[in-house]
Amino acid sequence: MVKKQKIIIDCDPGHDDAINIMLAGSSDKLDVLGITVVAGNQTIEKTVKNALRVCQYLDLSYPVYAGCPQPMIRARQMIADDIHGETGLDGPVFPELTRNAEDIHAVLFLIDTIMKSEGDIIITPTGPLTNIAMAMRLEPKIVPKIKRIVLMGGSYQMGNVTPAAEFNIIADADAAHVVFSSGVPLTMCGLDVTRKVLCFPEIVDRMRKIGNKAASLFADLMTYFNKSQKEVFGWDGGPLHDPVTVASILEPELLKIKPMYTEIDIRGLGSYGRTNCDYFGYSKRTPNVDVAIDIDVEKFWDTIGAGIKAYSA
Amino acid sequence: MVKKQKIIIDCDPGHDDAINIMLAGSSDKLDVLGITVVAGNQTIEKTVKNALRVCQYLDLSYPVYAGCPQPMIRARQMIADDIHGETGLDGPVFPELTRNAEDIHAVLFLIDTIMKSEGDIIITPTGPLTNIAMAMRLEPKIVPKIKRIVLMGGSYQMGNVTPAAEFNIIADADAAHVVFSSGVPLTMCGLDVTRKVLCFPEIVDRMRKIGNKAASLFADLMTYFNKSQKEVFGWDGGPLHDPVTVASILEPELLKIKPMYTEIDIRGLGSYGRTNCDYFGYSKRTPNVDVAIDIDVEKFWDTIGAGIKAYSA
Amino acid sequence: MVKKQKIIIDCDPGHDDAINIMLAGSSDKLDVLGITVVAGNQTIEKTVKNALRVCQYLDLSYPVYAGCPQPMIRARQMIADDIHGETGLDGPVFPELTRNAEDIHAVLFLIDTIMKSEGDIIITPTGPLTNIAMAMRLEPKIVPKIKRIVLMGGSYQMGNVTPAAEFNIIADADAAHVVFSSGVPLTMCGLDVTRKVLCFPEIVDRMRKIGNKAASLFADLMTYFNKSQKEVFGWDGGPLHDPVTVASILEPELLKIKPMYTEIDIRGLGSYGRTNCDYFGYSKRTPNVDVAIDIDVEKFWDTIGAGIKAYSA
Amino acid sequence: MVKKQKIIIDCDPGHDDAINIMLAGSSDKLDVLGITVVAGNQTIEKTVKNALRVCQYLDLSYPVYAGCPQPMIRARQMIADDIHGETGLDGPVFPELTRNAEDIHAVLFLIDTIMKSEGDIIITPTGPLTNIAMAMRLEPKIVPKIKRIVLMGGSYQMGNVTPAAEFNIIADADAAHVVFSSGVPLTMCGLDVTRKVLCFPEIVDRMRKIGNKAASLFADLMTYFNKSQKEVFGWDGGPLHDPVTVASILEPELLKIKPMYTEIDIRGLGSYGRTNCDYFGYSKRTPNVDVAIDIDVEKFWDTIGAGIKAYSA
Repeated sequence: MVKKQKIIIDCDPGHDDAINIMLAGSSDKLDVLGITVVAGNQTIEKTVKNALRVCQYLDLSYPVYAGCPQPMIRARQMIADDIHGETGLDGPVFPELTRNAEDIHAVLFLIDTIMKSEGDIIITPTGPLTNIAMAMRLEPKIVPKIKRIVLMGGSYQMGNVTPAAEFNIIADADAAHVVFSSGVPLTMCGLDVTRKVLCFPEIVDRMRKIGNKAASLFADLMTYFNKSQKEVFGWDGGPLHDPVTVASILEPELLKIKPMYTEIDIRGLGSYGRTNCDYFGYSKRTPNVDVAIDIDVEKFWDTIGAGIKAYSA
Repeated sequence: MVKKQKIIIDCDPGHDDAINIMLAGSSDKLDVLGITVVAGNQTIEKTVKNALRVCQYLDLSYPVYAGCPQPMIRARQMIADDIHGETGLDGPVFPELTRNAEDIHAVLFLIDTIMKSEGDIIITPTGPLTNIAMAMRLEPKIVPKIKRIVLMGGSYQMGNVTPAAEFNIIADADAAHVVFSSGVPLTMCGLDVTRKVLCFPEIVDRMRKIGNKAASLFADLMTYFNKSQKEVFGWDGGPLHDPVTVASILEPELLKIKPMYTEIDIRGLGSYGRTNCDYFGYSKRTPNVDVAIDIDVEKFWDTIGAGIKAYSA
Repeated sequence: MVKKQKIIIDCDPGHDDAINIMLAGSSDKLDVLGITVVAGNQTIEKTVKNALRVCQYLDLSYPVYAGCPQPMIRARQMIADDIHGETGLDGPVFPELTRNAEDIHAVLFLIDTIMKSEGDIIITPTGPLTNIAMAMRLEPKIVPKIKRIVLMGGSYQMGNVTPAAEFNIIADADAAHVVFSSGVPLTMCGLDVTRKVLCFPEIVDRMRKIGNKAASLFADLMTYFNKSQKEVFGWDGGPLHDPVTVASILEPELLKIKPMYTEIDIRGLGSYGRTNCDYFGYSKRTPNVDVAIDIDVEKFWDTIGAGIKAYSA
Repeated sequence: MVKKQKIIIDCDPGHDDAINIMLAGSSDKLDVLGITVVAGNQTIEKTVKNALRVCQYLDLSYPVYAGCPQPMIRARQMIADDIHGETGLDGPVFPELTRNAEDIHAVLFLIDTIMKSEGDIIITPTGPLTNIAMAMRLEPKIVPKIKRIVLMGGSYQMGNVTPAAEFNIIADADAAHVVFSSGVPLTMCGLDVTRKVLCFPEIVDRMRKIGNKAASLFADLMTYFNKSQKEVFGWDGGPLHDPVTVASILEPELLKIKPMYTEIDIRGLGSYGRTNCDYFGYSKRTPNVDVAIDIDVEKFWDTIGAGIKAYSA
């Protein structure tokens, strides 16, 4: 029997975070040790509630830990309510929430779990990197014990909040700097690839037809998500950013990777939060990030479809 | 009879600058008032010599004016000798130079010529924007009298000197800031389009076969240029950046344009010199630059070919 | 009976930190809840050891908690071994260390103690502000429960590491930004006043003559400290920075205070880490820091002298 | 006969600039080659007019040249109308202006005059450094031909526009960077000394009693100046900044000088425009600026008084 891959999902649900949790929950290849939540798409109160809602709805018993409510250095949390709505997960109607978050802070759960591990845990952050960076600074000994971080964030081309920056990075660029410069093996699934997995209406239909509760959740979430993406960016199918992380662990051939030396802009004004990935190797510096530069779109949707099908009716 | 379009070519030859001069000289639609030269691809002594060499070789009698030898604020001129070689125009063998630059400073020529004009001059900068910005600051009254600036520079995706910045902009980002924020109608032909007109060996062959002196010049220049592009960037055909400017004036349908609010990063470290073009309109600010987002590649090479053919044997 | 003022000493001993601990330990007006240690004048291993050494030597039973070994965002800890030597407390010869630090992380001790308090604790940081800022970000609810922070750090005139910045601030300017912008009542004892309490040889003599173990410690520490201050800054008496914090709590009239709006420079290059204190009120922004602008030098040395005398032989 | 020292006064009058012109005009030790004017205390139209007014009123026949109306890089000119009023020289009533500025741009006059000189000209800038920096960049050959620049500007302690920056520097920090890094011998008369020559009411009285037209001008100017200094800064005597430059040439013992490596902050936000003078030599870099650290206040007022007396009734 193949050993399951242990993962910790660090997220700020968020529509695409929710689908990423669903995808992780569908697979018998993964052992989800817990879900650590951070402020991002919405405030921490809301993102924690949303993580619990998704777990409860899908009967996933993962412990959920509330983490940092604001960025490491800047005072104010940036949220993405234009995309994710008032609740952070607008669209579906969830049953009343009966589950609660654990009593331990997400950062302390991360430290404790990683320190006790055998260096075999992958973290999949799909929100601002505040929890991870705070854990690294509170207990630097965890750094060499993290197997890999597979994150959604950044872009070596255009941003989605400013011309230079992507949301998860600009929302806490300082934390991103800590993580990117930590030395932990890092896979960056940025807008460069996530903007290729556009969830067009025909995809929504295809998934809805699967006909189980996971299918309904997917369809309800993406119908709302596509509507706001259309309003903000003008395209018909929103990019299903976050599930690229878990999908790439399930399907190692999914992404085309190019190692690049990458630095976060934490000093500038107009370029604050940009992931400067040295695609052409100008800097001659040793690559520190495995940057995703292409994705097998068909295989991605097949992976999502298989994930949905794995749930019972 | 259609009136000729008056232009001033501001350049730092440079292989692609040289071909841009050749292209401008080939057309009876353009009235080239002068060539102002700036340090960039090489030092000012060399770029002035190169402009003179190209004009002498092609029997173009345009006056050539030496301009600024260094950026406006930074002390040291950045050059691109890895691409353009020791002379700045390595490859062809030119006959002995008998022409001289004019006695007037390029910046003063720009001010004088624009002030005396009827607001009908287009400037086509293909090097750092030092001369133009210095002229704007020495005599701000020229600003409303410039019909348009059609420049090669910048990128809303990846740079070619750093992950964030393109050479002509980073070589004098402060000057670029002055020009981009001036209010003059501006067309930016950045790497986003110039990286689509790759001068593959078959293009070099096609042009060489035209068989006149312009064809030889093109072939000799691009053979060297492709060799260094291959060494630095690893691709087989170097992007023929600068001639996109003059070609787009000759062929108004050549480029697909999207107006964007654009700001130069003059504050950051890693992102210094980035052209932050607001492609998605996040900032809600009024567009100040007509950014080229696509190019008709076939029409481009046809334009270059027609330009070469216009020269005598 | 007057209630004792509860304080937590956050420090990076360091010669002047050591004397600050001695001063706090001398007073029956203070209830020292614990000493939280941070990297700064030396690495965390050394500063923790030094805090324990001083407590053991002076029979002070305060619990000592090890905190953060590096700044919040930057990778590398800046130390001040030019001033404080190889051990961070060069000069005195201490008996073998038998005490140990507590098992709890300084940041967690801070959070726990403040959350359980009645809002009556003053923190006196005399090192980089990493521990305090990490605590504020890990548990933002502590912010309104901190009575006041009386810190040594910053300068509204000249720095002591760069022309712009003082050591405790530049060593973790991001943490300083978190603390200065937190809204907690803040007293800044910067170089503007600490450079007025110069520990000239006659002061060292005066204290040594008190003749007890605290006097010896003072004299041994300051003899070394003055020697390195002389080498680095060229003056005969080193500024006794850190004890200004505890002295100002013991002697409320010690400092002349001017409230100023103050911002930490966390963006610049040459000015990184400067405390920009709006002395003249140009910004019209509400003051957020009580900045010390003068000190009663005689009263300061009397306070130090009284502190030494309070110890037994 | 001692040879007169040739100077060019570069200024933005401004009350204290006006008195500096008066002082220069009073001395037979100086040969004032011309007055170049820049925008600063007021717009260029007003500062040119004010320079002409002062010259006409005092029968000084110096040619006046209009220079740059805005900073090198930033779009908007910062002015100091809170201090100098609507005209830039509020207070005195001047007779109708009959003189005109020369037809040559100040920058071109500077270049031409310096190039033709024997390297024996001192420039005394008392406004933003735009004209000087533009001249250096338009014709770098002038740099080694400038004997010295004695400027009013900067501060190694506190600013007067922001906590970090002094007006003449922040109004065009980029230009200041060009000048400070040029290699020209430089004397910086910053706020550190000019704030010591406070023009208290008794000084105004003393000068008024001299009883000639220069005395009236001084008294009328300083009465207004003191009023606005009182409103803005709250002190009774305004600092007579600019005349420290010419006074220090007339009286070589006037200033105490300390050479320091000095860099202008052109990158930061809150510290933009700060003159980071390495007073303590932390950087180990070779000093590039002779920074004034003290001034003989009595000698200064005697020099001013002697200057006023030199004028006829």
